[in-house]
Amino acid sequence: MSYNTFGHMFRVTTWGESHGPAIGCVIDGCPPRIPLDVGDIQPWLDRRRPGQSKFTTQRQEADQVEILSGVFEGQTTGTPISLLIRNTDQRSRDYGDIATRYRPGHADVAYDTKYGIRDYRGGGRSSARETAMRVAAGAVARKVLGAGVRIRGAMVQVGPHGIDRARLDWDLVNANPLFCPDAQALPVWEDYLADIRKKGSSIGAVIEVVAEGVPAGLGAPIYGKLDSDLAMALMSINAVKGVEIGEGFAAASLTGEENADPMRMEEGRLRFASNHAGGVLGGISTGQPLVARFAVKPTSSILTPVPSVTREGENVDVMTKGRHDPCVGIRAVPVGEAMMACVLADHLLRHRGQVGS
Amino acid sequence: MSYNTFGHMFRVTTWGESHGPAIGCVIDGCPPRIPLDVGDIQPWLDRRRPGQSKFTTQRQEADQVEILSGVFEGQTTGTPISLLIRNTDQRSRDYGDIATRYRPGHADVAYDTKYGIRDYRGGGRSSARETAMRVAAGAVARKVLGAGVRIRGAMVQVGPHGIDRARLDWDLVNANPLFCPDAQALPVWEDYLADIRKKGSSIGAVIEVVAEGVPAGLGAPIYGKLDSDLAMALMSINAVKGVEIGEGFAAASLTGEENADPMRMEEGRLRFASNHAGGVLGGISTGQPLVARFAVKPTSSILTPVPSVTREGENVDVMTKGRHDPCVGIRAVPVGEAMMACVLADHLLRHRGQVGS
Amino acid sequence: MSYNTFGHMFRVTTWGESHGPAIGCVIDGCPPRIPLDVGDIQPWLDRRRPGQSKFTTQRQEADQVEILSGVFEGQTTGTPISLLIRNTDQRSRDYGDIATRYRPGHADVAYDTKYGIRDYRGGGRSSARETAMRVAAGAVARKVLGAGVRIRGAMVQVGPHGIDRARLDWDLVNANPLFCPDAQALPVWEDYLADIRKKGSSIGAVIEVVAEGVPAGLGAPIYGKLDSDLAMALMSINAVKGVEIGEGFAAASLTGEENADPMRMEEGRLRFASNHAGGVLGGISTGQPLVARFAVKPTSSILTPVPSVTREGENVDVMTKGRHDPCVGIRAVPVGEAMMACVLADHLLRHRGQVGS
Amino acid sequence: MSYNTFGHMFRVTTWGESHGPAIGCVIDGCPPRIPLDVGDIQPWLDRRRPGQSKFTTQRQEADQVEILSGVFEGQTTGTPISLLIRNTDQRSRDYGDIATRYRPGHADVAYDTKYGIRDYRGGGRSSARETAMRVAAGAVARKVLGAGVRIRGAMVQVGPHGIDRARLDWDLVNANPLFCPDAQALPVWEDYLADIRKKGSSIGAVIEVVAEGVPAGLGAPIYGKLDSDLAMALMSINAVKGVEIGEGFAAASLTGEENADPMRMEEGRLRFASNHAGGVLGGISTGQPLVARFAVKPTSSILTPVPSVTREGENVDVMTKGRHDPCVGIRAVPVGEAMMACVLADHLLRHRGQVGS
Repeated sequence: MSYNTFGHMFRVTTWGESHGPAIGCVIDGCPPRIPLDVGDIQPWLDRRRPGQSKFTTQRQEADQVEILSGVFEGQTTGTPISLLIRNTDQRSRDYGDIATRYRPGHADVAYDTKYGIRDYRGGGRSSARETAMRVAAGAVARKVLGAGVRIRGAMVQVGPHGIDRARLDWDLVNANPLFCPDAQALPVWEDYLADIRKKGSSIGAVIEVVAEGVPAGLGAPIYGKLDSDLAMALMSINAVKGVEIGEGFAAASLTGEENADPMRMEEGRLRFASNHAGGVLGGISTGQPLVARFAVKPTSSILTPVPSVTREGENVDVMTKGRHDPCVGIRAVPVGEAMMACVLADHLLRHRGQVGS
Repeated sequence: MSYNTFGHMFRVTTWGESHGPAIGCVIDGCPPRIPLDVGDIQPWLDRRRPGQSKFTTQRQEADQVEILSGVFEGQTTGTPISLLIRNTDQRSRDYGDIATRYRPGHADVAYDTKYGIRDYRGGGRSSARETAMRVAAGAVARKVLGAGVRIRGAMVQVGPHGIDRARLDWDLVNANPLFCPDAQALPVWEDYLADIRKKGSSIGAVIEVVAEGVPAGLGAPIYGKLDSDLAMALMSINAVKGVEIGEGFAAASLTGEENADPMRMEEGRLRFASNHAGGVLGGISTGQPLVARFAVKPTSSILTPVPSVTREGENVDVMTKGRHDPCVGIRAVPVGEAMMACVLADHLLRHRGQVGS
Repeated sequence: MSYNTFGHMFRVTTWGESHGPAIGCVIDGCPPRIPLDVGDIQPWLDRRRPGQSKFTTQRQEADQVEILSGVFEGQTTGTPISLLIRNTDQRSRDYGDIATRYRPGHADVAYDTKYGIRDYRGGGRSSARETAMRVAAGAVARKVLGAGVRIRGAMVQVGPHGIDRARLDWDLVNANPLFCPDAQALPVWEDYLADIRKKGSSIGAVIEVVAEGVPAGLGAPIYGKLDSDLAMALMSINAVKGVEIGEGFAAASLTGEENADPMRMEEGRLRFASNHAGGVLGGISTGQPLVARFAVKPTSSILTPVPSVTREGENVDVMTKGRHDPCVGIRAVPVGEAMMACVLADHLLRHRGQVGS
Repeated sequence: MSYNTFGHMFRVTTWGESHGPAIGCVIDGCPPRIPLDVGDIQPWLDRRRPGQSKFTTQRQEADQVEILSGVFEGQTTGTPISLLIRNTDQRSRDYGDIATRYRPGHADVAYDTKYGIRDYRGGGRSSARETAMRVAAGAVARKVLGAGVRIRGAMVQVGPHGIDRARLDWDLVNANPLFCPDAQALPVWEDYLADIRKKGSSIGAVIEVVAEGVPAGLGAPIYGKLDSDLAMALMSINAVKGVEIGEGFAAASLTGEENADPMRMEEGRLRFASNHAGGVLGGISTGQPLVARFAVKPTSSILTPVPSVTREGENVDVMTKGRHDPCVGIRAVPVGEAMMACVLADHLLRHRGQVGS
């Protein structure tokens, strides 16, 4: 019943605040004898790192990860893996304002109501900085899953601008800072976001994550469903307001005939003619690609003043100063991939435990 | 790490198959000295009961609940509450077909791939019959929450037909078998569903659940978020493919200005001018109404034959015989309410544990 | 974080009160395709059943177990197994006394202080009647472990009378109602207990449980140790006040030389020359017999009046009326075996999950 | 289901190996607004620190703890508290021997059988170095419990030499390096241990831990018993082979009359005439002192060669070189106190969650 842990057999606990000395995580339950070194983790962190384009926050963090335990002579030992990242760009500034004024749409007021205290510097525990450790844990999860499972994410909508699925190009995703998979949408998004940024505004987004090569049989009925665990994992990412699997909300408008995924045996293997289900039936993977999407709200940090209150109960208007992040959805792409990797690694071990290989 | 349990302090474990002798649940962690008898639970079960209109399955179940433990002289004792419902309408029939043919879109093939065995009678464990126990547990959760918290659900979309929010009328919801809150939408839905039913087709739906009176401060950062627990709880309901909080997926198209929820002190209390957030910030309740929606896919049981395979790997076409459920979303309304009640009761106790009252 | 659940992957939740309508348990996480029917469980329950000799309580319970879910056509399905036993001998009597007077040494006062309410009939939830469900769950755990693992328990001390280990005879254990493994100790114990019973007194005991054939490698370092899980499981049995593994408390008086378990390879297999460790090193099984002992206190229900208080805070003297159990340690033998079986089944699945076969 | 976590609401996860760069822990669920700084933790670590007398290992570790998260402006925030200790005395040496030879009585062979890999330097994860983090977590737990709860431990037996309880003097405990509470036993123990040390032998011990001021009502029936959680916590300490509560194993030889704890109201409060129960009835605290004892085996690292095997399956004789610890029980005293503090803090929060204040 931890507030800062997820997973059951592949179990990740994160800790740390935006402007504390460091952030970190402990991964417990990782199988032994998996080759692992910093080089397996760092590239994924680099991909999430802030300050890499004008469309994300300008905070500069090297995000250099250290492995403090659980790995010996280049292999996991089965004991807990402790990962640490020192915070380096804790910009010296006056937090007097934020200490007493609640930023609308942020966790400020909720944390203070709950705990009666919070580390207000840079959002403290509620900062998206925590997601770096999700990405680090996700890198370890990918090693557990092995090369046969491929997990890829992309941004598929920015504000009103979606992609054309006929043009979906996974190779493009890592070649542009927006994780955009549609060559024609990309310049539209760039112009749109440049404008949002210039106005000091912000905009929401939709991210899609797909896992291919997922073995059939992962997940469990009722409260251990693969899709409900995935929903929890994705909804736990900062600013996420919706999660869907396969057809998702579109399924509400479909008839049973339209939503059917016919099955056939082909060359001795089960084949589905379509994947409206998104790779999961009754909470259990079918072997088809696992498809999830999640919606990220626009950040509340905008240059327009918004009515708010102070800790002492006075009315004020609050506007964001300093670093600005016009579309927090962008950096959620590697985070979404990491969460899917962790959920799958967890279910792989759980399945092996109950049913055997 | 149970597959059939949810919640942490208010903890519900369900068991039972569609055509076994009984279904049941065990509620552990319920506070003591809460008045509770069958009369607190039965009405909610009656509301979910099948066979009450032509739009839901014609299975006849009395769904009479028995309290087997945890209650003494009309009050909870703090020990586990065991609830039991005997199955009565296990219609005598030949399951030979279903035993070997996988119904497309059902959990059949996934269960069999995972476990190598399944109780195929009426869907076995994957049957929506399990949701009766969620409703029973939700009734107990409502007692834990007390009269100050009001949880209501409604169907807000059936296939292509949504409601007009300007006409939303909660009083109407319990006065029609479709849990429809819009008097003008109701006849449209009835005609539409009558047609779907006549054709032996099925259709999806969207359900909205709202909790009012939720104390501010419930939930926890990062992996104990109120909204991520809610996402898991709602996604675990049969046939659900998407979950959203507040603006949900619509937030992807909003700017920070449009999505802002301005705050003001009014008569010494914090007031929000809007509720795009759906009652939760940073995973913690704000005191505003908690608003969640979930999408239910059309049932795969339709009269049109769909290509499928048998257990032995032969191609067959499968169509549904017997009882038919044109819109499984309808009966998901009380289930969604129950899940929200359970999540809130759990977080109420968790909050009290860590922070005190 | 359940109060009434133990185990992680093989997970047992029990419920029910001494004088409620029934007691039961739910076993979650059991592997699929294990042959199981009532005949696998009932004999173990019969062994624990009260009223089988003059040395245990005279309550008459048939303890007929029903399987309500999780088994289909004689095999487990991987879904939760619900077991139920109806209470039959809820002797009609006046509980007025016990309702307001706390029996010294019983849980009465502690429960009432904690919850402010309790089902006082026959001890309610704190009754040893709950252990019937442990035995039932243990029967299922034995099936998970398979025939290669043999778990046996015996009483090795009654009051001041221990056994001579040179005479330890496992075959004798099931041939006498005291689970005594020493033919010379048996008549001594019988006379001693007859005297205790006649005086309306009670006496403590020590039980030993041994598992042979336990695969090496079960357990985990630090907080998932096989022996610490076993300690918790055995200490949770009613009236248990101490648990030890291998040499246990005797190890405090040994030197390193005396306590050493030398190892040698013999015919390609690792052999230990002794088993002071009791089959576990660093929390992980070595393949040697797993040896645990636990101490059971004398029941507090004696015919001698003991000073006590009422619920209302008046001084009273309390003595036991009616059924009397001179040595509750006797019936703890099958319960201890069952707990060891459950812990081992849990660790077998956990090990398989993390490490593979 | 973590292997390296204990507790439910006050939840401690430890990580790190003896000769890795650092060890650490994450404490999750700590209530907010508790004053906490390094000065609250360091003194307890200093008390456990090695190298403080000739009777414990000569490893030199400053054990300087850093607080990396969860504390802001001198108060806990309710978010995870990350504590870190850098290892400094990783003596440069050749581990070639230990890498391939299993030390008898150590976890070496068990770890290798389980995981197929282990960090053999200084015992790796199975080193008692991990217990430093238990002590650190215990220091935080003490702050949660508040000044009203006093937890003290002492060594009460060294090899064959026990204490005379009539002379038990708590003030003496912290005034001698053996945590001995008996002024007459102290010189006997010193001579005895000096001799054990000179011979390169080792000896076992019994430690007693007592908590006074524990509120009545902590714990829960059946599988959430205060004493079973305590048994697990104490048995999880390195080298512990037995745990007992109150009379413990001695209760096996007592009659119900001898073991009774009579109750009386005195000045409006419940008083017990004795405490054979050790402060817990039916798994729930009574308000009396909570009394636990645990037995620590002699360390297997002795100068006498003991038959063993290598990783490759060759017979060898193994004897300890270098640092030597004649009685590992000594340093277990602060660890036992810490584990009791953590278990009590956890149950305090759990009780508050379910029952309220």
